[in-house]
Amino acid sequence: MHVTKEQIAGMGKFERANFINSLSGMKSANLIGTKSEHGVTNLALVSSVFHVGANPPLVGMLMRPHTVVRDTLQNIKDSGVYTINHVNEAMVEQAHQCSARYDSDKSEFEATGLEEQYFNDFAAPFVAQSNIKFAVEVREIQVLQLNQTELVIGEIVGVLSNKDYCLEDGYVDIQAAGSIAVSSLDSYHRTERIDRYSYAKPDEPLRSIWKTQS
Amino acid sequence: MHVTKEQIAGMGKFERANFINSLSGMKSANLIGTKSEHGVTNLALVSSVFHVGANPPLVGMLMRPHTVVRDTLQNIKDSGVYTINHVNEAMVEQAHQCSARYDSDKSEFEATGLEEQYFNDFAAPFVAQSNIKFAVEVREIQVLQLNQTELVIGEIVGVLSNKDYCLEDGYVDIQAAGSIAVSSLDSYHRTERIDRYSYAKPDEPLRSIWKTQS
Repeated sequence: MHVTKEQIAGMGKFERANFINSLSGMKSANLIGTKSEHGVTNLALVSSVFHVGANPPLVGMLMRPHTVVRDTLQNIKDSGVYTINHVNEAMVEQAHQCSARYDSDKSEFEATGLEEQYFNDFAAPFVAQSNIKFAVEVREIQVLQLNQTELVIGEIVGVLSNKDYCLEDGYVDIQAAGSIAVSSLDSYHRTERIDRYSYAKPDEPLRSIWKTQS
Repeated sequence: MHVTKEQIAGMGKFERANFINSLSGMKSANLIGTKSEHGVTNLALVSSVFHVGANPPLVGMLMRPHTVVRDTLQNIKDSGVYTINHVNEAMVEQAHQCSARYDSDKSEFEATGLEEQYFNDFAAPFVAQSNIKFAVEVREIQVLQLNQTELVIGEIVGVLSNKDYCLEDGYVDIQAAGSIAVSSLDSYHRTERIDRYSYAKPDEPLRSIWKTQS
């Protein structure tokens, strides 16, 4: 099958959204935790979180300003901080429900039954049910001129996780922590490890580095 | 466990890279196909492809300029086009091998045995073994001032896939197509669908929309 540019342009709005959102591949499922100036907590489900750099530790995500994430974006701009919480299977329906358009004065924690968790004096709420979560301070927000989406980049300033998931070489077994993947807009997937491979070099065969770790 | 900013800064380079790359969650595994001005084809394994918008259909990816993706970035700047090819389990070792630092005059296709495929007059090569792949024209490259990585945004101008994977509502069953996820830098994961859920609305229970589709 070949789908042309013209056929994509001719699709209905929802069909095109499903189709194009499928193409980027399996994506991370994260809940972004924030708190408003008025003290209202907020959770937004985001599938665009991506690695930006390790030193300093930077993470990015893309947000469309006038959609359901409008409160999250405003809270990040006002408070400067947010949390990123991996979604796992036990909380997948509550996480998806966070993509409903609740009024700004309604907390998605309250609406879905997910529990707020605070750590030290970090102002943004974590999700208690998440097994891998981290605190982020916003560093830069850039508007992409092509479609007015906002690229939010932040620095990771603390990580909460169970030590059991963290291997000696720094790798975190996010599958063991239950972190799931999302495809397109609404399909959620648990994972099964194929393998971990050695650092690739020209003219050197790959080795599995998974079994030797556990 | 709580890992502080100071502990992250104190990690060794490889430990920190493994750790921070784990935090963004399950990521897409894509091979970027390009061709140089001298006609040398290139494949780069990228886990940062993300959805930017559906109308126009835009996709982004982040690249570090002086690393193994340097040739890919140069080819995109020179030719203006590239392909994005989902990695599946049958080609996972070859895909990981593409992250080795081959000389610029060596094609990763030739080095790994992945096959070049061309469609109509699109100048960049597709990966024959991939089941979901698309042609992209670069629209904007922005340098992120925080760490000098380059954000490449392109428009999807054609999609190659088997019709069987495409559902009536536009959703593409990329799991059925074998598309896999990657965690951190070197771990690959097949997926198993938990469910697809209805569009979330406040005060309305979610419904599964998966079984009614098939």
